[in-house]
Amino acid sequence: MYIGRVDCQAAGVINDFLSGLDNAGVRDADTQRVLHSWSAQSTLKPLPIAGGLGSTVWDHDGRHYLDFSSQLVNVNLGYQHPKVVAAIQEQAAQLTTIAPAAANATRAEAARLILERAPEGFEKVFFTNGGADANENAIRMARIATGRDKVISTYRSYHGNTGAAIVATGDWRRIPNEYARGHVHVFGPYLYRTEFWATTPEEESERALRHLERTVQAEGPGSIAAILLETVPGTAGILTPPPGYLAGVRAIADRYGIMLILDEVMAGFARTGEWFAFDAFDVRPDLITFAKGVNSGYVPLGGVIVSEHIARVFDEQVFPGGLTYSGHPLAAASVVATLTAMAEEGVVEHAKAIGADHIGPALRSLAERHELIGEVRGSGVFWAVELVEDRETRAPLDAAAMGRFKSSLLEAGLLPFISENRIHVVPPAVVTADEVASGVAIIDAALGELSA
Amino acid sequence: MYIGRVDCQAAGVINDFLSGLDNAGVRDADTQRVLHSWSAQSTLKPLPIAGGLGSTVWDHDGRHYLDFSSQLVNVNLGYQHPKVVAAIQEQAAQLTTIAPAAANATRAEAARLILERAPEGFEKVFFTNGGADANENAIRMARIATGRDKVISTYRSYHGNTGAAIVATGDWRRIPNEYARGHVHVFGPYLYRTEFWATTPEEESERALRHLERTVQAEGPGSIAAILLETVPGTAGILTPPPGYLAGVRAIADRYGIMLILDEVMAGFARTGEWFAFDAFDVRPDLITFAKGVNSGYVPLGGVIVSEHIARVFDEQVFPGGLTYSGHPLAAASVVATLTAMAEEGVVEHAKAIGADHIGPALRSLAERHELIGEVRGSGVFWAVELVEDRETRAPLDAAAMGRFKSSLLEAGLLPFISENRIHVVPPAVVTADEVASGVAIIDAALGELSA
Repeated sequence: MYIGRVDCQAAGVINDFLSGLDNAGVRDADTQRVLHSWSAQSTLKPLPIAGGLGSTVWDHDGRHYLDFSSQLVNVNLGYQHPKVVAAIQEQAAQLTTIAPAAANATRAEAARLILERAPEGFEKVFFTNGGADANENAIRMARIATGRDKVISTYRSYHGNTGAAIVATGDWRRIPNEYARGHVHVFGPYLYRTEFWATTPEEESERALRHLERTVQAEGPGSIAAILLETVPGTAGILTPPPGYLAGVRAIADRYGIMLILDEVMAGFARTGEWFAFDAFDVRPDLITFAKGVNSGYVPLGGVIVSEHIARVFDEQVFPGGLTYSGHPLAAASVVATLTAMAEEGVVEHAKAIGADHIGPALRSLAERHELIGEVRGSGVFWAVELVEDRETRAPLDAAAMGRFKSSLLEAGLLPFISENRIHVVPPAVVTADEVASGVAIIDAALGELSA
Repeated sequence: MYIGRVDCQAAGVINDFLSGLDNAGVRDADTQRVLHSWSAQSTLKPLPIAGGLGSTVWDHDGRHYLDFSSQLVNVNLGYQHPKVVAAIQEQAAQLTTIAPAAANATRAEAARLILERAPEGFEKVFFTNGGADANENAIRMARIATGRDKVISTYRSYHGNTGAAIVATGDWRRIPNEYARGHVHVFGPYLYRTEFWATTPEEESERALRHLERTVQAEGPGSIAAILLETVPGTAGILTPPPGYLAGVRAIADRYGIMLILDEVMAGFARTGEWFAFDAFDVRPDLITFAKGVNSGYVPLGGVIVSEHIARVFDEQVFPGGLTYSGHPLAAASVVATLTAMAEEGVVEHAKAIGADHIGPALRSLAERHELIGEVRGSGVFWAVELVEDRETRAPLDAAAMGRFKSSLLEAGLLPFISENRIHVVPPAVVTADEVASGVAIIDAALGELSA
């Protein structure tokens, strides 16, 4: 049945199939047969995306969109980076898949490049298929390393859709899925909508820490395995931690023998303008989880970066977790190429500069002209703009208005990321100054329409 | 930063990196930095695999191995099938990744081809990254469709490593991970080591059904959302259900309004010699989970095939599950090519015939000559051979002997799948009669050594 080793020149089933499609046909074929995430299916009108390059995607009718969403905030390196595409094609020609129990050179190289970006004292990578099972396995490691059960995370968080990850998640998506035990939630710092009656960032930080420590004490410190936090909570609103907060969490963890897991799935690998979002803060976690930006999601992959003291636990003791595609060579190849391209092309530095010099100033200038904007916050290519009915009460703009806003952005050719009353400005980390200016101009016009 | 659309001829970071490696270097690089599944890390000596074709893999020192494991029983189409490799390369050149909220042609086509193989009344596919999150989402759907909590599965089962999937799992891997509620376990049929004092397959079936129904009654039928079974429990021992068992489970599910989820992750897509393992039985599930064979694991992907009556639930109600890489185009392309190749090349029929005409007869002939063999069972390319100290007591061969057995198979160039006291003979579904003969000869010799 085999015709021998393939070279890269083959043409076949996919190229044939993809020619001559149109939007209506693709949308019909998709919605008829595919059950979509987090939605009622009858209301779906998904945009049929045919291809992309850099920060732009296009549909099957030839319409182009500037992407200010990075899809699910994962296409950090932009669409179809040639080096990563080539790496996938080369690895595909060599060896697509191998079991976790084998050794594999590409997997080892991906681990080496990831560890190169982690702080000192991190030693091993456990690979998964995405962010959810990364958090599942980090929780597993923390529980075994401490011999304790409970995991503390925040209400404003998202950690994934599987059994433990979805209950660690704090937002509404947890509620219909609450079938795991041992999860406790606290409020995190969010000065604009403070839960602590605070008036300054410092006060918000101090009070959020006090709330966390009181919860630890009330739950029983000896029962708590881990504090699990997105370094910068993402979907919840891009909530950059106030001064001293993360260092304070580390101190609480140390005081009570609790492991600190920082979830860098969305925030890591250039998103905030750093390799890891925590690089901007005075904090070192015990475990780091990642996915998305590590390979822009070109091939499904996530993982846990394990510090030495936790790695030691599993030298002699069996690690009771695993999965068929752990350390998948094709996925690993995309990591190797992504991290190489990011370093060679200065993508992390570019993200930091484009945020500081272009996105931040442009959004702040919008806020000066539009009463609808309650707050602008972020860094790198990770920004949130809160839309409010009223700047005094900070009442969120309602869902109907947000729906109209989203429609006008799409009509004008901008792919937005809308969450509750916010637009998250989260383009690929390779977005140019010109693209930022065009995208912000579209937002400007849509805000104008919305106020009118 | 972009050099424009890539063609297939690019050469870069992976090809450069993969040249000139040797086994020792790859093994060191891997074990230093990669945390491996289900193992104590200090005892690892992973085989460094450089490439493969068909049913053969090779290491970096040029040694070839005949693969009787299909890695983790996933490489059903064999290594590096040219049509699937080409499809991955083509889709990589077009569009590697897109969010689940978009529509995508390749994803829709993968869903169409999967549904084409499912029984009538199956309507939609929910895509995941692998088998674990497929089971997580099937459980979620069953709970929401019934408004009930509990899930019954068997002790001899494996359903994945995430929060709910690992607790649905019945084997030892559940025990250190038991943090989800609502899971109940029963014994399934396994005549060779019956839990029901049965002496015939019919009696085993009837008694296992009685045990299941009594558990349903004792747990409270109104509390049970789903019965979750591997159609043919795989890692637990390739336990083909006895006559009437699956039809009886369906009847119990119907009697009490319980959803039946059949886990076809390992058993599906040619493994048993059928498209779905349940095609050989008089049973139709409400939900089917899949991964592995659907694309031989060339790109991480799994999913749930959803019957019409469950799909209807999520027309108006939000489906509270999702993941960034759901319906990933690159993974979908590998499904499209795999299912096309399987159909064109008659791989399912080949698997059935090679099992009936070659693997089964060869293993039974071994059993005639080796007292160590307690039982041979299976179909297609899915066979288990139980090794016992004594045919009367059926006492399993001990771990030390199984370790020696595994070493001699490897030394002779056979990659085996060993689980407890069993060797699972699970080559790719494209294995040839000659390869079966060579592999079985190696097993024959190793059994000879072991008895001596």
